[in-house]
Amino acid sequence: MPTQAQMKAALQAYIDGFNAHDAEAIVKLFAIDASVEDPIGAPLRSGIAAIGEFYRGSVGLVKRIELSAPIRGSHGDAASMAFTVHLDYEGRACEIDVIDVMRFDANGHIRSMQAYWGPDDLRYVG
Amino acid sequence: MPTQAQMKAALQAYIDGFNAHDAEAIVKLFAIDASVEDPIGAPLRSGIAAIGEFYRGSVGLVKRIELSAPIRGSHGDAASMAFTVHLDYEGRACEIDVIDVMRFDANGHIRSMQAYWGPDDLRYVG
Repeated sequence: MPTQAQMKAALQAYIDGFNAHDAEAIVKLFAIDASVEDPIGAPLRSGIAAIGEFYRGSVGLVKRIELSAPIRGSHGDAASMAFTVHLDYEGRACEIDVIDVMRFDANGHIRSMQAYWGPDDLRYVG
Repeated sequence: MPTQAQMKAALQAYIDGFNAHDAEAIVKLFAIDASVEDPIGAPLRSGIAAIGEFYRGSVGLVKRIELSAPIRGSHGDAASMAFTVHLDYEGRACEIDVIDVMRFDANGHIRSMQAYWGPDDLRYVG
């Protein structure tokens, strides 16, 4: 099982990858057979090919991710974080308040990511 | 499925219950067959009797819960929130940074609660 420090470093690297608009830096954090549910309630993206496609499409839209509070670990293989995404969505500037929960495999790769945000958590600011 | 507003109101009521030291106000938010995993990695508490015992024991230790950022909904039956718990633990004042994820049943009751906090997220302040 990865350490608390390893899991928290992976979540920070995920944010840093978005802020550097570097999709490959994000994708390499994931296991080959990982899954992404973003947002909760949307169809699951399964496997590194679908995950790669998702993040390559996302990094261009996201201007900045801002952590709302320190990253949380767990007593297991999971970590989570609350943040605000600043992005362009359908040509308009907006912000989304999100909580991401990630579970890790024994090698320290993300095996699942679940993003909690609802329709009310997106606001247009431009 | 409960609305975003209903789920967010339940999470706010959960915090308010702790801040009022009112275990019954918290317990009544849960479904009869709900489960609580606090923290992630600890044994699951299943059913309203075990959940009642847990919260009746907790409300006396918790001095205050402070939300770190707005409560997040989802596009499904889940909501989550980041907060700091101020409590007395083994006779010492401490703070724990936590993210709680809750899933709801069709009646708007919490059917599962999972608390993300690790050993590094607890700090002694007194």
